[in-house]
Amino acid sequence: MSQPAPEPGLDANFRLAMRRLAATVSIVTCKDGDGRHGITATAIASVCLEPPTVLVCINARTRLYTKIAERHRFCINLLKTCHIELSRQFGSRDLAAGRFTTGDWTELDDFVYLRDAQANLFCSLQKVVEVGTHGIFIAAVERLGVASEIDPLIYQDGRYVTAQDTLR
Amino acid sequence: MSQPAPEPGLDANFRLAMRRLAATVSIVTCKDGDGRHGITATAIASVCLEPPTVLVCINARTRLYTKIAERHRFCINLLKTCHIELSRQFGSRDLAAGRFTTGDWTELDDFVYLRDAQANLFCSLQKVVEVGTHGIFIAAVERLGVASEIDPLIYQDGRYVTAQDTLR
Repeated sequence: MSQPAPEPGLDANFRLAMRRLAATVSIVTCKDGDGRHGITATAIASVCLEPPTVLVCINARTRLYTKIAERHRFCINLLKTCHIELSRQFGSRDLAAGRFTTGDWTELDDFVYLRDAQANLFCSLQKVVEVGTHGIFIAAVERLGVASEIDPLIYQDGRYVTAQDTLR
Repeated sequence: MSQPAPEPGLDANFRLAMRRLAATVSIVTCKDGDGRHGITATAIASVCLEPPTVLVCINARTRLYTKIAERHRFCINLLKTCHIELSRQFGSRDLAAGRFTTGDWTELDDFVYLRDAQANLFCSLQKVVEVGTHGIFIAAVERLGVASEIDPLIYQDGRYVTAQDTLR
């Protein structure tokens, strides 16, 4: 098979393409002796149902990357549309100091989680696959919290949107 | 650290939680001497920008799993809202025979792709991580097609939706 050379402008076009990949916004959290840690993430996928397994991609330069790699326990909190400000706060380095000062955060065993999230996935790390600047954290879901309401906060084309149920 | 026992009903609750994870719908395709192969997929994530890398989770019982593992080249076609019927066709085992008979499919080198998709990611497989019933296919993006329109087909709570730009 021929190996096509990478296109000129590949990086810029990849960013453009990824703006078209609408994704649910979550805040990934963990806690340790230093306190609570968390970041906003959209690169999350359901891997398989048996056993319940998810993955999340995290930048290796974040503190959370190191903390999860050490602690092995973390929570994925799927956000609702009312959580835009929380998402901004956990997504901005400038607002890092204020994280966990607003929002309905509470603790359970080794976890810190957002009580009014759409869902809380309490995860046990199984494996980290390092790829370029990021790690793929593959985790078993040990416990779950699920709200009755289905109202995901979605990120698309650099902005927050919600779902509109007009398709058949 | 204590290891909490898995909750009763964990599997059922995991399915409920995953219904809250709205995701863009894609059709993943590859071709070989036997012809064209493809399935609908929603477990797709951007891994990192440098180098451009994506992942897709694929059930090990599908033919596509074997084909991509053999060929190493595949295309992720991000669907638009007009592609609902295509998504159903590539997502149903019953409709497998009719795949590629409708839709604007064409070929380029080792790839078969959907010309009017939101974006086409022409991928070169780097690694497969096997987890339970599925494999995580991690791939470098070698080439890209990007449409000007941003109009992702989104799957949420077992149905197709589109984005509504009402949030600030």
